[in-house]
Amino acid sequence: MDEKNLDAVFISSLPNIIYLTNFTGFTTIDRDGYLLVTKKNQYIFTHGIYSEVVSKEVKNFTLIPIQRENPISTSVKTIITEEKIKRLGFESFDLKVNEYEQLLTNVDKKIWFPADLISILRTIKSSEEIKTIKKACQLGDKAYSYILKHLKTGITEKELAFLLEMFIKKSGADISFSTIVAFGPNASKPHHVSDETKLKKNNFVLFDFGIKLNNYCSDMTRTVFFGEANEKQKEIYQIVLDSQEKAVNFLASSILNPKSYLKAAAVDKISRDYIISKGYPTMPHSLGHGIGLEVHEPPRLTPVSDKVLTQGMVFSIEPGIYLPGEFGIRIEDLFAIENNKLIQLTTSSKKFVEM
Amino acid sequence: MDEKNLDAVFISSLPNIIYLTNFTGFTTIDRDGYLLVTKKNQYIFTHGIYSEVVSKEVKNFTLIPIQRENPISTSVKTIITEEKIKRLGFESFDLKVNEYEQLLTNVDKKIWFPADLISILRTIKSSEEIKTIKKACQLGDKAYSYILKHLKTGITEKELAFLLEMFIKKSGADISFSTIVAFGPNASKPHHVSDETKLKKNNFVLFDFGIKLNNYCSDMTRTVFFGEANEKQKEIYQIVLDSQEKAVNFLASSILNPKSYLKAAAVDKISRDYIISKGYPTMPHSLGHGIGLEVHEPPRLTPVSDKVLTQGMVFSIEPGIYLPGEFGIRIEDLFAIENNKLIQLTTSSKKFVEM
Repeated sequence: MDEKNLDAVFISSLPNIIYLTNFTGFTTIDRDGYLLVTKKNQYIFTHGIYSEVVSKEVKNFTLIPIQRENPISTSVKTIITEEKIKRLGFESFDLKVNEYEQLLTNVDKKIWFPADLISILRTIKSSEEIKTIKKACQLGDKAYSYILKHLKTGITEKELAFLLEMFIKKSGADISFSTIVAFGPNASKPHHVSDETKLKKNNFVLFDFGIKLNNYCSDMTRTVFFGEANEKQKEIYQIVLDSQEKAVNFLASSILNPKSYLKAAAVDKISRDYIISKGYPTMPHSLGHGIGLEVHEPPRLTPVSDKVLTQGMVFSIEPGIYLPGEFGIRIEDLFAIENNKLIQLTTSSKKFVEM
Repeated sequence: MDEKNLDAVFISSLPNIIYLTNFTGFTTIDRDGYLLVTKKNQYIFTHGIYSEVVSKEVKNFTLIPIQRENPISTSVKTIITEEKIKRLGFESFDLKVNEYEQLLTNVDKKIWFPADLISILRTIKSSEEIKTIKKACQLGDKAYSYILKHLKTGITEKELAFLLEMFIKKSGADISFSTIVAFGPNASKPHHVSDETKLKKNNFVLFDFGIKLNNYCSDMTRTVFFGEANEKQKEIYQIVLDSQEKAVNFLASSILNPKSYLKAAAVDKISRDYIISKGYPTMPHSLGHGIGLEVHEPPRLTPVSDKVLTQGMVFSIEPGIYLPGEFGIRIEDLFAIENNKLIQLTTSSKKFVEM
């Protein structure tokens, strides 16, 4: 807060609330709560249906009920006045316009400043957090070798996604996003929604899935070939794999040099340019994204990112080549930077597989 | 638009995008797209990773890519200028403050007006939509009778939730929200998160779960007794059931009178006051909520709602009594108003069950 010259921050983002309180009972269906952290105190605002559980589970935060006769703008106003808060940060990337307007009815617009303090804190993970993400990745590796055994002619994308998700849930974890299984031409759409398409011989099969374990997410993508691939298919697979390896090698060697100032954009460029140099289209997505309590969080590895990759960051590297009407190939692993080393968290084989 | 004196609407809400385009490929992880509907044209803005699928699946909308060199504010500005739009509605309940600020960098603030046209359209369902919700409810009824067979000493809340969700997914549907299974005192928290609590004799078991079928949601709650209930437990169950029945009878008879002007708040009051009259605390939630593409949508049946319940609306009626440290009881059904009749969509028995 001092760095940003703020006296307090108003927090609405659900993952940020989980990060600060460890309370995971709020839903994504409605806006169930907010936090206000000042230099002296910590407040949690929530509705009556959560008062029992929040008062029991959220220690170190004063519970302020949101009620018709006591709307949040009034409670915030009281605290602002009492604690003489002059500069209040808020999460403009999360707060809705109408929530903001409601707050402004009681609290002067001049004191509100967009500030994303907590998400920035979250980009640097503790070794505990990295350990949890690694566990999620290990379960992902297991799920992947499980699902490979179920590839057979005629099975649908949806059926494979279902089996994969069941495996994850039976292992006591949850999914971090809706599993993508894409056959052949479907895989040229990077976010294909698994459907009733049946698996046919001589097609690529792309799996992009994630696990949520103790609130932390994993994410991985593998593309295998069902049948016998032709030369072009093998070659393009190899280009994607090489483009990932080039980015990884660049990263790993840069980290060894403690003076290096490693820009996320530079890593994206290595992989992206290699694919282009081979005559294939530039990826319609960034090379990677941070991951933690959210599947997608900072840092983003994009061509225009100004982020520097540092100790404690966990992110994906996931190049792809997409040929509409033909197929798509993406290979995605998660990496952490820890103790001046690049550590790969997902470890499933990437050798070209024909099955 | 005419009614609200608007020339166009800018739509960011995902369920509203699904409603207007039938396209369900956008995720809730990132902001994947927006719509702009003017009196002459319809535009869909999205990122490169969706361009192939959107251009194929979203007919009647002109696709405008969101690109670094072509941010959405520029595209909106161009359309506004070309079509001479003076008053532009936007979804302030959904749009984030930073998205709004970004749009305002190119489009004058004076032309933006908060307007919730599409969600209001969505409150009145077609008979097709009601049919789909009814199908989801019927699957819910089946899932409920399936799960009752699995109650046994020692099973955990999580295990029951898992079995219920598996049943739903094996039936080709999805869940509309995270299943709540709550034993004994856990059920006094209306939104309890199912955990490792083991089922013990002589406790209430509350199931609150929903199905998503062809994008439409169902939602139901039943509370049964595992073991033998005492008189107080039976009595409180009966009060909850009666309070629901009173609201339903009031609604059903009001609908028969075509001149009646049926306020959602009046229905809430019937049920709420009855519970209070019996000496129990007022519900910490509203009596009900609309449902459709979203689990919670207008109309809300709250004490302060100004909504009138009319033909085509689908909503829950779900009174509850919550006694912290003891137990909680909630009974929830979905209803539709169709052809001047109140139709109950969930039909599982509510007779007091000891098992």
